Amino acid sequence: MALENTVEACDFVIFGTKGDLARRKLLPSLYQLERAGLIHADTRIIGVARNQMELKEYVGLVKENLQEFMSEKLDAAVWKTFSAKLDYLCVDMKDHAGYAVFKEHVDADRTMVCYLATPHSIYGDICKGLHQAGVIDPSMRVVLEKPIGHDLASSKVINEQVATYFKENQIYRIDHYLGKETVLNLIALRFANSIFATNWDHNCIDHVQISVAESVGIEGRWGYFDEAGQMRDMVQNHLLQILSLIAMEPPTTLDADAIRDEKLKVLKALRPINSSNVSEKTVRGQYSTGFVRGQEVPGYLEEPDANQKSETESFVALKVELDNWRWAGVPFYLRTGKRMPTKVSEIVIYFKSQPHNLFKDSFSKLPPNKLTIRLQPDEAVEVTVMNKVPGLTGSSSMNLQKTKLDLSFSETFSDERIADAYEKLLLEVMLGNQALFVRRDEIEQAWTWVDGIIDAWNNSNEPPEAYQAGTWGPVASIALLARDERAWYESKVGRKTK
Amino acid sequence: MALENTVEACDFVIFGTKGDLARRKLLPSLYQLERAGLIHADTRIIGVARNQMELKEYVGLVKENLQEFMSEKLDAAVWKTFSAKLDYLCVDMKDHAGYAVFKEHVDADRTMVCYLATPHSIYGDICKGLHQAGVIDPSMRVVLEKPIGHDLASSKVINEQVATYFKENQIYRIDHYLGKETVLNLIALRFANSIFATNWDHNCIDHVQISVAESVGIEGRWGYFDEAGQMRDMVQNHLLQILSLIAMEPPTTLDADAIRDEKLKVLKALRPINSSNVSEKTVRGQYSTGFVRGQEVPGYLEEPDANQKSETESFVALKVELDNWRWAGVPFYLRTGKRMPTKVSEIVIYFKSQPHNLFKDSFSKLPPNKLTIRLQPDEAVEVTVMNKVPGLTGSSSMNLQKTKLDLSFSETFSDERIADAYEKLLLEVMLGNQALFVRRDEIEQAWTWVDGIIDAWNNSNEPPEAYQAGTWGPVASIALLARDERAWYESKVGRKTK
Repeated sequence: MALENTVEACDFVIFGTKGDLARRKLLPSLYQLERAGLIHADTRIIGVARNQMELKEYVGLVKENLQEFMSEKLDAAVWKTFSAKLDYLCVDMKDHAGYAVFKEHVDADRTMVCYLATPHSIYGDICKGLHQAGVIDPSMRVVLEKPIGHDLASSKVINEQVATYFKENQIYRIDHYLGKETVLNLIALRFANSIFATNWDHNCIDHVQISVAESVGIEGRWGYFDEAGQMRDMVQNHLLQILSLIAMEPPTTLDADAIRDEKLKVLKALRPINSSNVSEKTVRGQYSTGFVRGQEVPGYLEEPDANQKSETESFVALKVELDNWRWAGVPFYLRTGKRMPTKVSEIVIYFKSQPHNLFKDSFSKLPPNKLTIRLQPDEAVEVTVMNKVPGLTGSSSMNLQKTKLDLSFSETFSDERIADAYEKLLLEVMLGNQALFVRRDEIEQAWTWVDGIIDAWNNSNEPPEAYQAGTWGPVASIALLARDERAWYESKVGRKTK
Repeated sequence: MALENTVEACDFVIFGTKGDLARRKLLPSLYQLERAGLIHADTRIIGVARNQMELKEYVGLVKENLQEFMSEKLDAAVWKTFSAKLDYLCVDMKDHAGYAVFKEHVDADRTMVCYLATPHSIYGDICKGLHQAGVIDPSMRVVLEKPIGHDLASSKVINEQVATYFKENQIYRIDHYLGKETVLNLIALRFANSIFATNWDHNCIDHVQISVAESVGIEGRWGYFDEAGQMRDMVQNHLLQILSLIAMEPPTTLDADAIRDEKLKVLKALRPINSSNVSEKTVRGQYSTGFVRGQEVPGYLEEPDANQKSETESFVALKVELDNWRWAGVPFYLRTGKRMPTKVSEIVIYFKSQPHNLFKDSFSKLPPNKLTIRLQPDEAVEVTVMNKVPGLTGSSSMNLQKTKLDLSFSETFSDERIADAYEKLLLEVMLGNQALFVRRDEIEQAWTWVDGIIDAWNNSNEPPEAYQAGTWGPVASIALLARDERAWYESKVGRKTK
C-alpha cells in the first residue's frame, strides 16, 4: 500500500510552537510532509503558545517562519493546503484550567498527537492539563524532546509524570539521530548483507569509532549548556543510541520492541566507568580561545554570560567496552565536542588486519578495511578496500593502494531530496510506529551508565583539560587511542562553511 | 627500486615473428614497454622467420605491423629507439643446422629470452636447434604459447622435449588471462581485505560463476579449432587458471612456486567428471545459424571449410566441484562459448543470503551480496550491496535496493592507460619472475581432468546440442543451474561493437 494511503488524519498539536525547535525543525518538516502528500487531508496542525493571537496572525508567523528556515522557496499550492490545516491555541501551559479549550478544538474521532517542544520541566503540567481537559484517550500519542532529565533520578521523575497519563506505547521519545538516513541504513547494511553480517563481531572487527564534532560553540545558550555539558547533551542520547544500533544482536523482526529490546541489552552490557577507571577510560575537555576556520573565537569561559569557574566539559572522549559475547575485546571509542575544526558526525568500523601480510613491498602493515558511515555534513557510506595498483608490475611485487567504494547518497540519488530526520520521525509518529523512538528503559539505562562517569569526574577534583578552539580536543584524547596503538580517524575538513 | 632499473638487458628472440601472435600482440606490447622505459637500452629484439629478408625490410614490416595493430599513433621518438633494437634472423626452424647463426647474433653476456610464437609441433625442433648451436645456458628463458598439447599424452611429449634442454625454472608457459589487471587484482582483493578473506569459503559463498563468452565464430580457423574444441581451447587453460586463483588457499608468499603450489592443489581437488556423471555435470553445444548483434551469421557446420559431420563443441557449461575443506558444497559453474550475444568475461562470486530475512516487505527472498570481477570488455570490480532506499519510510517497512559499489578501473584511473596482458607478461619474463606463468604439473593436472570429460563425451554417442548463434548456449546450460535453483548472471550486452 502506498505510504500516503496509510497515514491517518490526526490533530497534530505543537506545544511551544513559537520556540526554536518548532520554528526551525517541526513546522518546516510538516510543510515538507505536506508537499510529499503524506499529511492526511483532514489533519489539523495546532500550534500552542501562551501569546494571545488571531489565527490569521499565527498563519502569517508560520509563513515567515518557513521562509526563514527553509532553503527552498515556498510553493504556493503546497502553502495553500498546508496553511488551511493550521490552527492556533493560546494556552498558559502551566495553568491546568486553560486546557479546557482543547475539548473544543480537537476531534474525538481523530488521533491526537501532542508534540512537547517545550522545556522538560513542564512536561508534567502539560500531561496533567490534557488529562483534566478530558481529551486523553488510548489512541493519543505524546512526543517528548530530549533532554529527558538531567540524570537518572530526574529522568525517572519526568518519565513517571508522563506515565501517569500515558502508556509506554503512546510515548514517542525523539532522538533525531535515529531519523538520519545513514543511521537507518546501518540496519540495512548490517542485516541485509552477509559480507558485513558475517564480519560483525570480535573475530573480524578491531574497534569502532564514533565521532560527533561541532564547529559551533555555545551559541548564546551558555547557561543552559553549562548545566548539562557535552556528556549529558550528546553522549547520553545520540552517541549511545548509535552505539546500540551498531552493537545490537540481530532482532527477530524490525518491530519497535524487537529492536529496542536488543538496544537495551547493549546498554546493559556497557562496562561501568567509575572512579577506579575514569582517568584511564575518559577524557573531558573545555575549549579555550582559538581559531575556527580562520576566525578567532572566544574560549568557553570567555563566552557571554560565562561563569569563570565552570568546570563543565565541552568535549568528551571515551573508551567504551561491552561485556558481551560478540564484542569482547573490541573497544568503541566515542568523542564529541564543540569548537572542533569542522562539523562532522562519523562512524568508522575498523576491521581486523589480515593475519598474514603477503604485500610487504607495498605496506609493512596492511591497512585494514574500514566501513565509514557519515551522518553529516553529507550522508555517505564508504568501504575502504585494498586494490592492486594497475600497471606494469607482477604479482611478486604487487603494489597496493587503498580505494574507497563510495555509496554516497548525494551522488547516487542526486536528483532526490534527502528528507530531514525530523520529517521521518514526525511521519513515523503519525503512522504510529515507535521503532525509531527511545523507550523509557533505554533512557534510564543510559543515564545509569552516564551518571557513573559524571560522578567519577565530580569526585576526581581534576578539572577538564583545556583544548584550543578549532582543534580535535585535548591531547589526552589522542593518547587515549595511542595507548592502544590506534589513532582517531582523520575527518576531512570540508570547504563548505555550512 | 624503480621498475625501470630492475630490468636487465636481454636478447629477446621471437620465433615466428611474422605470425599472428607476434604481429598482433608481441611486437605492439614490446613497443609499449619501450615507450614506458621498461626495456633496457642494450636489449635487442630479434625476429626469427624462414623468409630471406634484409634487416631494413624487416624493420619496415614491423613498422607497418605496429601501425596496423595499435590503436594509437606511432611516437617518432619511441619508434626510433625501438627500431634501433630490432634485428632479424632468417632460420628454417625445423632445420637444426640453421641455428648456427644465433651464435653470431646473440651476446653470451646477455640473458637470452626465446619466445616460441609458433605451432607447438616445432617447439622440440627449436629447443634442439638452439642446443646444437650451443647458445643455451642456465640464464636463458623460453616462453611457450598455448596450446601445449592436445591432451595429457601430447602435452607430456612437448613438455618432455623442452625439458630435455631447459630446467622448469627457465620455462615460462603463457596464459594471457594471468596478465589481466582484474585477475591479478583477485589476489589483492582476496588476501589484502579481511572483509573478503573471512568470507571466502563454503560458510559464506553460495557458488561461483565464471563466464568467458565470445561473440566471434571461427574466424577462418575452422580446421585448427575443430581439432581442439572449446574445452581444450578455453577451459583447460583460461577457465581452470581463473578457478585456481579464486579457490586456492592463501600462499605463504607471492613467490612463483608458493602460488603455483596452491593452484596445483586446487586442480588436484577437482572432482572427476566421467561417464557416470558427465550428462549431469556438463553441457556441450554447437552453434547453428543465427543473429549476432543484428547480423545473420552461419552455423558452425556452415562455416568455410567445415566438415559437415563435426561434433566439436563451440560451447561448454560445467558444474565443477572441489573436494576439499574450503569449498565443500560450493559449485563453480563455468561456461564459455563462441557466437554468444556479446564478448564478455566475468567472474561472479555469489555470497550466501542472510539466514534470517528482516526485510520481507522489500524482498520475499533477500538478494545475496555479489562480487563481480569483469575481465573484458572493460576491466572492473563491483560489489553488490543491499541498501536502504532513502526516503520517508520507517524502519519497520524499510525499503531496500541493490546498489553496486563500482571499482571500475576505467573510471578510477581514467587518465591511465591499462596495460595489455601481454605487456605485463613480457615484462615479467624479462624480470625473470615466473609467478604469472603456468608450471608443467599444473598443465598436466588440468589435462588429466579435461581428458576425463572429453573421453566421457566421446563415449556417450550424444552429439553436442545445437544453439542458435547469438544466444547464451543450449537451454541445457540454463537447466544445469536451474536444477540447483540458481541462474546464470545476466551479463550486460554493451553497445560497443568492439
